[in-house]
Amino acid sequence: MIPRHDPEQISFASDNYSGAHPEVLAALAVANGGHQTSYGADAYTAALPELFAPLFGEGIEVYPVWNGTGANVVGLMSLTDRWSGVVCSDMAHINTDEGGAPERVGGLKLLAVPTPDGKLTPELVDRVAIAFEDEHRARPTVLSLTQSTELGTVYTPAEVTALAAHAHGLGMSVQMDGARIANAAASLGVPVRAFTRDAGVDVLSFGGTKNGMVFGEALVVLNPAVVRGVLYLRKLTTQLSSKTRFISAQLEALLTDDLWLRGATHANAMAARLAAAIEGLPGIELTAPVQANGVFPRLPRAVVEATQQRFGYYLWDESDPQRPVARWMCTFDTTEADVDAFAAAVRESARPS
Amino acid sequence: MIPRHDPEQISFASDNYSGAHPEVLAALAVANGGHQTSYGADAYTAALPELFAPLFGEGIEVYPVWNGTGANVVGLMSLTDRWSGVVCSDMAHINTDEGGAPERVGGLKLLAVPTPDGKLTPELVDRVAIAFEDEHRARPTVLSLTQSTELGTVYTPAEVTALAAHAHGLGMSVQMDGARIANAAASLGVPVRAFTRDAGVDVLSFGGTKNGMVFGEALVVLNPAVVRGVLYLRKLTTQLSSKTRFISAQLEALLTDDLWLRGATHANAMAARLAAAIEGLPGIELTAPVQANGVFPRLPRAVVEATQQRFGYYLWDESDPQRPVARWMCTFDTTEADVDAFAAAVRESARPS
Amino acid sequence: MIPRHDPEQISFASDNYSGAHPEVLAALAVANGGHQTSYGADAYTAALPELFAPLFGEGIEVYPVWNGTGANVVGLMSLTDRWSGVVCSDMAHINTDEGGAPERVGGLKLLAVPTPDGKLTPELVDRVAIAFEDEHRARPTVLSLTQSTELGTVYTPAEVTALAAHAHGLGMSVQMDGARIANAAASLGVPVRAFTRDAGVDVLSFGGTKNGMVFGEALVVLNPAVVRGVLYLRKLTTQLSSKTRFISAQLEALLTDDLWLRGATHANAMAARLAAAIEGLPGIELTAPVQANGVFPRLPRAVVEATQQRFGYYLWDESDPQRPVARWMCTFDTTEADVDAFAAAVRESARPS
Amino acid sequence: MIPRHDPEQISFASDNYSGAHPEVLAALAVANGGHQTSYGADAYTAALPELFAPLFGEGIEVYPVWNGTGANVVGLMSLTDRWSGVVCSDMAHINTDEGGAPERVGGLKLLAVPTPDGKLTPELVDRVAIAFEDEHRARPTVLSLTQSTELGTVYTPAEVTALAAHAHGLGMSVQMDGARIANAAASLGVPVRAFTRDAGVDVLSFGGTKNGMVFGEALVVLNPAVVRGVLYLRKLTTQLSSKTRFISAQLEALLTDDLWLRGATHANAMAARLAAAIEGLPGIELTAPVQANGVFPRLPRAVVEATQQRFGYYLWDESDPQRPVARWMCTFDTTEADVDAFAAAVRESARPS
Repeated sequence: MIPRHDPEQISFASDNYSGAHPEVLAALAVANGGHQTSYGADAYTAALPELFAPLFGEGIEVYPVWNGTGANVVGLMSLTDRWSGVVCSDMAHINTDEGGAPERVGGLKLLAVPTPDGKLTPELVDRVAIAFEDEHRARPTVLSLTQSTELGTVYTPAEVTALAAHAHGLGMSVQMDGARIANAAASLGVPVRAFTRDAGVDVLSFGGTKNGMVFGEALVVLNPAVVRGVLYLRKLTTQLSSKTRFISAQLEALLTDDLWLRGATHANAMAARLAAAIEGLPGIELTAPVQANGVFPRLPRAVVEATQQRFGYYLWDESDPQRPVARWMCTFDTTEADVDAFAAAVRESARPS
Repeated sequence: MIPRHDPEQISFASDNYSGAHPEVLAALAVANGGHQTSYGADAYTAALPELFAPLFGEGIEVYPVWNGTGANVVGLMSLTDRWSGVVCSDMAHINTDEGGAPERVGGLKLLAVPTPDGKLTPELVDRVAIAFEDEHRARPTVLSLTQSTELGTVYTPAEVTALAAHAHGLGMSVQMDGARIANAAASLGVPVRAFTRDAGVDVLSFGGTKNGMVFGEALVVLNPAVVRGVLYLRKLTTQLSSKTRFISAQLEALLTDDLWLRGATHANAMAARLAAAIEGLPGIELTAPVQANGVFPRLPRAVVEATQQRFGYYLWDESDPQRPVARWMCTFDTTEADVDAFAAAVRESARPS
Repeated sequence: MIPRHDPEQISFASDNYSGAHPEVLAALAVANGGHQTSYGADAYTAALPELFAPLFGEGIEVYPVWNGTGANVVGLMSLTDRWSGVVCSDMAHINTDEGGAPERVGGLKLLAVPTPDGKLTPELVDRVAIAFEDEHRARPTVLSLTQSTELGTVYTPAEVTALAAHAHGLGMSVQMDGARIANAAASLGVPVRAFTRDAGVDVLSFGGTKNGMVFGEALVVLNPAVVRGVLYLRKLTTQLSSKTRFISAQLEALLTDDLWLRGATHANAMAARLAAAIEGLPGIELTAPVQANGVFPRLPRAVVEATQQRFGYYLWDESDPQRPVARWMCTFDTTEADVDAFAAAVRESARPS
Repeated sequence: MIPRHDPEQISFASDNYSGAHPEVLAALAVANGGHQTSYGADAYTAALPELFAPLFGEGIEVYPVWNGTGANVVGLMSLTDRWSGVVCSDMAHINTDEGGAPERVGGLKLLAVPTPDGKLTPELVDRVAIAFEDEHRARPTVLSLTQSTELGTVYTPAEVTALAAHAHGLGMSVQMDGARIANAAASLGVPVRAFTRDAGVDVLSFGGTKNGMVFGEALVVLNPAVVRGVLYLRKLTTQLSSKTRFISAQLEALLTDDLWLRGATHANAMAARLAAAIEGLPGIELTAPVQANGVFPRLPRAVVEATQQRFGYYLWDESDPQRPVARWMCTFDTTEADVDAFAAAVRESARPS
């Protein structure tokens, strides 16, 4: 079998345009061969709590699932009743990019509130976390935070702590969509525990796919006392892998020698390099601080036309068609040369003629 | 990273206790590197219809999904309305082993009918395919067949043709759960087309995981005229992989040099060898013909006690606790030596004392 | 406004072909006028626990709902998790006549078992109440009994007690579909408590519509310790009436001077009269004992042709087309003259020519 | 049976605090007696298309359902696929007051957009009716309008026409939540057709309960070409009444001698009288124009404290706790004396001390 693609070509479209990190791929071979009990009862899956303990401490539960949507839906279902509502940002992935799976598979009602920079605050939560005893409304039950956010911004440990305390005070649980949690950890430079378990997060989607895995995420239950039925929910949502060892072995590779953090640190650095390289160019401005691996610049349409096809990226907001906002994502395998070539092309096309 | 399991040890518990075929694993490396458009718009996924054409002909659609439950649920949803019912065997995987996903995710009502040997007939279909215009009942809309069946039996091309014609005559579509379709093809010795597309099957779950893939199945739409919304349904059920190239590349490996058929032919041969080796032993009888890769013998309890732990298998039916029925599954990596050692142990334990 | 129908004409098709009992209609006028808090916070609804106490004792909860399907779905949901299964007879109304609402609205999986006379037994329960810890299957969580059954048979207090004890012993709850519970009470001649609360039933659908109400049923929670979220579930399933006083007032009428029992006693007597009148006729045999208000005779096709149109009834089982089984239902407003005329016509048409 | 409430006491809390109009109650008696085919096959239900023809013309379909939530959910489901989204105001009843039934029963995703006065515009629609071909988002499929709105405002025929044309141009259908459609018709003084069928509305929830019915609404399909499966959907959502004649007869009463319009005209007049009576009082201002039967005044907290308990009403918006917005609803049975007494109390409590 021969390649059907150019393994040298990268883009700035999405972290999941990237492939797998070689250390991850190697882990699949290590876990291969022989027979292992399927559906999660294998040796690699059994090791996960221990492997995650340096990050989150003892007493957690780790459930491999297929993808981020699955991790979010199963996690949210495990925290909710059939009558629950989930408070989230209106730009949360669960609200805009999961095809309605939280509603349609989870039977959840999303209580979405506008967030200018992608980040919720206790005040914003209070706009929709109302009427707890009113059966006519979905009962606010979970606060869902995305870390890093869809806009490439990052909650500080203090911010998560305040939000979680507020939610818990209202009787709600806290779920974190950590599809890019590694980028947040790299950005904050603190132990991941500081803005998750220690900050009051109950359930976490620990991202793998956007960070060098072939496939797979970990649903990490940081507070087992507040979840119910995770095993059943993973199965009935179609999120149970039979050869679970292959997700778990990839997670082990990611946790070995901090590969998860190395990749994210690199991706963040590439985003910062890219942002720095275009700063101050005429007609270009950043619409959100560059704190993780995404850059969200407002661009002249001419720049888009000159660069989008060659470097591959999406437009995030075209409400101003002449000056749309683009989304540029960097990954573990973005190189400095990739960034510099891209920045040069932007610079070239942004020059006043 | 070092192995956590013994890569030499196999069992007879399930085809998904096995790992991945080396040719499949190699395909992941081939597809790795560089960036590819995610969510199905990559070069490997684009090639799938062409790669499957030798099996099923032109004009088909191929959608990679995570697992067999997903392939079944998405396929059934694409053929149905919110008020539909699905006719199936009461031992169908969709009825007994998918955690209620067809009902809970798909909103489907299963119209299950008892089948002594796992195989439906037009007469059995007619027991539940009734009251088509009665809004008080789920409208029978799809006939779901499992090939090979959960009991290791195989529908002949003529049987599928008759069932599909019957279903179509009633205005129903035909879906096939082909988690083990390779074993059926190997067993029948006919082109897979003969008992699928040419026989009237509209939508097929083409199994990969049980046949040497790391993960992944193909939802193959043989009759695109009768499905709706597959892309949306795959997404909203959480079955859309972002790095789709990695499922598609595995499928390509499976289709290269008939690996899919080679593996299944071997697995079937091992099952036949095992069945032959225990035939005629005192107190042991086969409860279903061995046509694919499963053997379902009724065994004295003493045989179970003497062999189950060492060789690893499930009991299928314990309604007679003293003489339960076991399920012994062979896979692409079961060896003759494995079979012979197992058969010897059975023979030994079955000896009248 | 003038009538569009003949208020003198009755049929034997269904208890819900009948209208409302005059005492029920009068209750609507009593409850009319002025304003009452909607959605269940009115004076009539507040009185329900006290009004039902003579039947079921203290400490119960009563929730008016629209219809039997709603009472069953809300009741079952209040007893279950998202991964639950419900054990029932394969001819249970929830399985055959609710359009899949338990699955589609409730997200439930029905674990249906064949019951020759419509009645479950502990042994039959054990056929499907299995694999409690297996996430691949729906977890058996509730046992659902229909009293009187869809075949017009009645569970004795001892039978319900044994079934409920068995279910509770397995960790399951017990729900009763009492759409015709009045007919069961009239048949058994014991306090309704004897075969409900005292026998171990946790949640009851107390039928109103089939027993002289314009509309409405009561979801009676006999064991509040085992339900969760009833108010929310009633709302989200669309089963919350805004002018709830009008359901509650009808229930009060039904409970006043035992109207509920008077009507059912009469209906049962009419069924018995009908059964007696056709007993021994050539080619006619009862397929189930006549214990409530339904008669299920096997009839020569000629009898059907001679009587079905004039007296109005459904065929229950046409698997033998020449000798189908009919369903004849009697109601609170069936008269002796109606029965006698019908029986005479049957007798006439059944005569050997 | 004796009354449990004071039939002289009214409130300003909700139109469904009221009881039934005597002409409606009389219709139940007319339709009573004898047997009629259940589940919608009775003479009263058969007459509905003809009875509604003076309002909406020929070629429509009318389906009685239990309540407004049911009418909305069934109507929306009949217009949508499993992957659909519904564009609506963020204060739409379907978004805020139906317990999540559209999501949980209908599997719909609501695409809600803020509307200052409760009314959508084409520009507001365009904010969320995007990404039609993007499987990651719910596909915008229906535009849902509430007429009159939750804020007591009314769309003009021209406004509905423009919105419907815009939606149809985008390939979407148009559903109208007409729980208070009679109030809108009374307010506009035009034939109801002018702002429904002739304006491009495809499916309408025609309100009965808030306008003098004991219970029941009509799902009116104005454009049968665009709906699918209404009968099945009504059943599986638990919205099918068995004794359907009793809903249909009430609808007939409502349509007889324009009772529906008489009641609404009166309710609107009472709201206007109330608004006029408090206009210009110190500290009181209307937050929305009074176009139907609701008044939404901002009030000093002292006025609330002095009047809320005696006259019964809800607070609509307490974001400014010292000057909350109240909701005062008038109904068919609100009298001038009721209004005047209430206005006098407000006036009294609003006096500067």
